[in-house]
Amino acid sequence: MSTTTPSELDGLVQSAHTAYREASAVAPTVRAGWLTAIADALDGAADELVPLAQEETHLPGPRLRGELTRTTFQLRLLGEEIAAGHHLEATIDHADPDWGMGPRPDLRRVNVPLGVVGVFGASNFPFAFSVLGGDSASALAAGCAVVHKIHEAHQRLGTRTAEIVVAALAGTSAPKGLFAAVTGRQAGEALVDHPLVRAIGFTGSTRVGMLLSERAAARPEPIPFFGELGSTNPVFVTRRAWEERSEEIISGYAASLTLGMGQFCTKPGLLFVPELDDSARTALEETFSAAPRFEMLSERLAEGYGSAVATVAATDGVETLIDGEHGPAPAPSLLLTGADEVRANPELLSTEMFGPAGLVIQYGEEDRLPELAALLDGQLTATIHGESGERPAELVDLLVAKAGRVLWNGWPTGVTVSYAQQHGGPHPATTAPGTTSVGTAAIRRFLRPVAFQDFPTEALPAALREENSWGIARRVDGRWQPR
Amino acid sequence: MSTTTPSELDGLVQSAHTAYREASAVAPTVRAGWLTAIADALDGAADELVPLAQEETHLPGPRLRGELTRTTFQLRLLGEEIAAGHHLEATIDHADPDWGMGPRPDLRRVNVPLGVVGVFGASNFPFAFSVLGGDSASALAAGCAVVHKIHEAHQRLGTRTAEIVVAALAGTSAPKGLFAAVTGRQAGEALVDHPLVRAIGFTGSTRVGMLLSERAAARPEPIPFFGELGSTNPVFVTRRAWEERSEEIISGYAASLTLGMGQFCTKPGLLFVPELDDSARTALEETFSAAPRFEMLSERLAEGYGSAVATVAATDGVETLIDGEHGPAPAPSLLLTGADEVRANPELLSTEMFGPAGLVIQYGEEDRLPELAALLDGQLTATIHGESGERPAELVDLLVAKAGRVLWNGWPTGVTVSYAQQHGGPHPATTAPGTTSVGTAAIRRFLRPVAFQDFPTEALPAALREENSWGIARRVDGRWQPR
Repeated sequence: MSTTTPSELDGLVQSAHTAYREASAVAPTVRAGWLTAIADALDGAADELVPLAQEETHLPGPRLRGELTRTTFQLRLLGEEIAAGHHLEATIDHADPDWGMGPRPDLRRVNVPLGVVGVFGASNFPFAFSVLGGDSASALAAGCAVVHKIHEAHQRLGTRTAEIVVAALAGTSAPKGLFAAVTGRQAGEALVDHPLVRAIGFTGSTRVGMLLSERAAARPEPIPFFGELGSTNPVFVTRRAWEERSEEIISGYAASLTLGMGQFCTKPGLLFVPELDDSARTALEETFSAAPRFEMLSERLAEGYGSAVATVAATDGVETLIDGEHGPAPAPSLLLTGADEVRANPELLSTEMFGPAGLVIQYGEEDRLPELAALLDGQLTATIHGESGERPAELVDLLVAKAGRVLWNGWPTGVTVSYAQQHGGPHPATTAPGTTSVGTAAIRRFLRPVAFQDFPTEALPAALREENSWGIARRVDGRWQPR
Repeated sequence: MSTTTPSELDGLVQSAHTAYREASAVAPTVRAGWLTAIADALDGAADELVPLAQEETHLPGPRLRGELTRTTFQLRLLGEEIAAGHHLEATIDHADPDWGMGPRPDLRRVNVPLGVVGVFGASNFPFAFSVLGGDSASALAAGCAVVHKIHEAHQRLGTRTAEIVVAALAGTSAPKGLFAAVTGRQAGEALVDHPLVRAIGFTGSTRVGMLLSERAAARPEPIPFFGELGSTNPVFVTRRAWEERSEEIISGYAASLTLGMGQFCTKPGLLFVPELDDSARTALEETFSAAPRFEMLSERLAEGYGSAVATVAATDGVETLIDGEHGPAPAPSLLLTGADEVRANPELLSTEMFGPAGLVIQYGEEDRLPELAALLDGQLTATIHGESGERPAELVDLLVAKAGRVLWNGWPTGVTVSYAQQHGGPHPATTAPGTTSVGTAAIRRFLRPVAFQDFPTEALPAALREENSWGIARRVDGRWQPR
């Protein structure tokens, strides 16, 4: 498969920049139409794309169909969101001679798109976090142009998806070049370096993410880098919950951990239980052995997985409870350790085994949980299983300080796309804990606020003109005026 | 003056962390009361603080009184803002079995404070961007604890202000240690490095800002760095405006440029005019020579200013129009160049002369303005002076892409504190173009969103419980419910 040359990359970024400038004043409803057109085209191409994805990723067909549904649902939801103008956060302060600190000029703020955004997709979600996944969809919704670096693990699918997206946009009023895709590592690096690229969206490994993040920071003009990197997604089970329903918890845990061969950034990699008796061990072995197996996303990933599991297994005080085979389609593995071992080797809590493996920690006394939770790095998710009436406030507070999403009696895989979703978290979960990469709020990261002082009405952006011809929600003199 | 030792610094950060955790669930109205108590105490101490500030900064008394008013107004306005709960962006998605992409769990998101924030104040605003300036006020409003590094240029004032703030908080329900101040460069560096410090707010030079920003990024766990660095704040005058009212523009320009001895991050450093005839030169000389003079903030700053002016003046094609003396209280300087010279040496547009000096650029043909504007770095502000009916759309678009605030027929000094204010901009104006350091929106940078999935009501934060006992504005199932 051919890779993008530096001059091709430059041409695509230049066109994307021109397109972004042409499109930046378009009404949100028009832009929403572009997102819908892409969604319709992708839905229409499902019978072509899903088999292609299956071939390249080895993921099951039904899962891929579900993922495509999620992807197009997301495009339409983001379209509705921008049509209502929420993302603009339009704010109008009329001139006020009596303002408390001295006369106030007429000041109006609106969020404007950053410009061309470079998006790096993930291998594990060939639709939802790839060509037209969350980052691309929210950058386009924000009014940015997108140049997407296709993941080498599904290059044919990526190329075909990009063609469909470009064709769909060509059937709308969107300016040519608003979306483009590139291939090859060199093009990816050039994308981060290009002066007209104004932000990067990335989903992938901590290693590559940090390399690219440092690259973005080392530019003559550093740009925002929104990276979703690694997470071990701890699950804490209270003693009462473990006593009441360990079987149910074990079966839920195994299902969430082995889903999609454990190739999820939200895979529950750590399970904290008071202790593991023989019957629990047997239940774990049974449920794990029943998990469906298929080939992992790529050979390289399977190798990295095998070596991560071996590293954790070789740590002092770690016992191998279930020894999954390694190789292209490994059986699930489960490792076991205790609270003291974790205190002695806290890196056990941060080593992501990207695949169907987990580490169970026997914590013993429940009052040790906060101390163990305090050893965690930043996380995408953290989960508590407790019984009705239990309220482990200290543990919750600690997890809120560490994670982007906290769950009660649930499992972290399956990240709904909605208004309240938060997919993010402190380093190393992400490089930008104040933002999300899933949900309607994801649009905001590709925008920045600009204030207009004493501007004549005709020179103001439509969102800030008195007449509000777009009919969007705005804040006027401190009061929100819903749509 | 004594400096903070490493172990003292550690103790203060530890206490601040404990205080933040204790205070994190406090109702916003209670926290607003703390801000008001600080504002009252600072207002009450004006007669003590203003003379102290005058002594250390050489700034005029009335200006300092105005700045203190601004500072306490800001505290009260941020208090009102959090009492209404806007900063929490509380969002509730009830469980929905019919959600388009598949059943949706109950998901609720709220913004939580980052933790302990390290704040570095600026020398040029000893109240408004110092001990309890914008960053400290918005971090406290967000629910964070603050450890402030006092600027060495006003160490006695800073120390005294910090004492007053600590005493004011002691008279409220705020936990001990929520605010603390430290002195000395070593303490400043240790503050950036401390594992319990979760974000940095900084206002100052590009050089120091970039050093600290890189330091924050090089931590084992990098943290957000919100730095307001440098800006040359270009002003573009259309040919018609220059023909109609060059005198008025010259007097406004001189007043804004020489205000406070030009020691403002929003000083209009660049003035683009079609050409400068003899009468305009004379008018500039007259208004500049009439500007009040006083000693600059510090000797070091005066030296840096002198050398920046000398560098610009020595550039090929730059003429010295008004040769201000250098030294502790320099007279204003004005340099002159042309469009071709700027194209040949674009660094002329980015060299900040922090003091009473400006560079006038004769642009000749108006259609060259966009090309010149395209050479600009990121800016805090950009200004256009035009006549009624003029609409230089291309220029406006370019400036919107470069600056955080664009002004029409105004001057950039004087940054009001309000809902629509945006004080920020792309690098090098700031390190975080998606945020502001002035106005109610500044609170948001010290928060990050957390989603709660399927949490029992009693374990949810008050902001997200069904009953809305805080009576705050929330978004429920996609619809905003204003307060």
